[in-house]
Amino acid sequence: MLVKKQSEIPSTPVAMAGALKVHMRMLLGPADDCPNFAMRKFTVSPGGHTPHHQHDYEHEVLVLSGQGTAVGPGGETPLKPGDVVYVPANEMHQFQNRSDTDFEFICLVPASVHKPVDCAR
Amino acid sequence: MLVKKQSEIPSTPVAMAGALKVHMRMLLGPADDCPNFAMRKFTVSPGGHTPHHQHDYEHEVLVLSGQGTAVGPGGETPLKPGDVVYVPANEMHQFQNRSDTDFEFICLVPASVHKPVDCAR
Repeated sequence: MLVKKQSEIPSTPVAMAGALKVHMRMLLGPADDCPNFAMRKFTVSPGGHTPHHQHDYEHEVLVLSGQGTAVGPGGETPLKPGDVVYVPANEMHQFQNRSDTDFEFICLVPASVHKPVDCAR
Repeated sequence: MLVKKQSEIPSTPVAMAGALKVHMRMLLGPADDCPNFAMRKFTVSPGGHTPHHQHDYEHEVLVLSGQGTAVGPGGETPLKPGDVVYVPANEMHQFQNRSDTDFEFICLVPASVHKPVDCAR
């Protein structure tokens, strides 16, 4: 059993194109030998947003604090703590923070997203 | 994109042997066609606990509120909001609530745990 205090986990800026004022903590991932899925925590500062993009894997999201906006193919949905979001693979999506306080959520993805590429293949 | 309010998700008592005063909400699971992992929220009332058991799949846990105790092979660890726990497959574990308020956490498992058994196999 592995127990971590969140304060011990580094928070790093998200450098992905299209991300603005977003930090990520890898709560549980490949470094912990998690075999199937990775748990990341995102903090979007006021005025920030994740990329408006799509990819071939899903997101499972739980809002922890603050107020955000989910942007999907069907339009925009306001988000508050406790809300749950599922983004299926290959669907455009974005999370925005138009408020004046941090917007925080966890976002789970398949472990393969964060595993090093197997150079033998 | 699917957005759910947690209040719209049923909370059901956990009937598993060894569970006491535990309720579960299936935040994202097979009914949502999530292909790889399921997000459950557990509420352990004061004096309650999850089963002290092991199984062939892992847990990824994030504590949301309250105070709990994680019991593992190495002993007991107090838990507070924001703490992260990884329980690898085939390791004995239990979550207890010795406090006088609810203890809440999310616990992710592989989707196969909640998928109906394929009777053709």
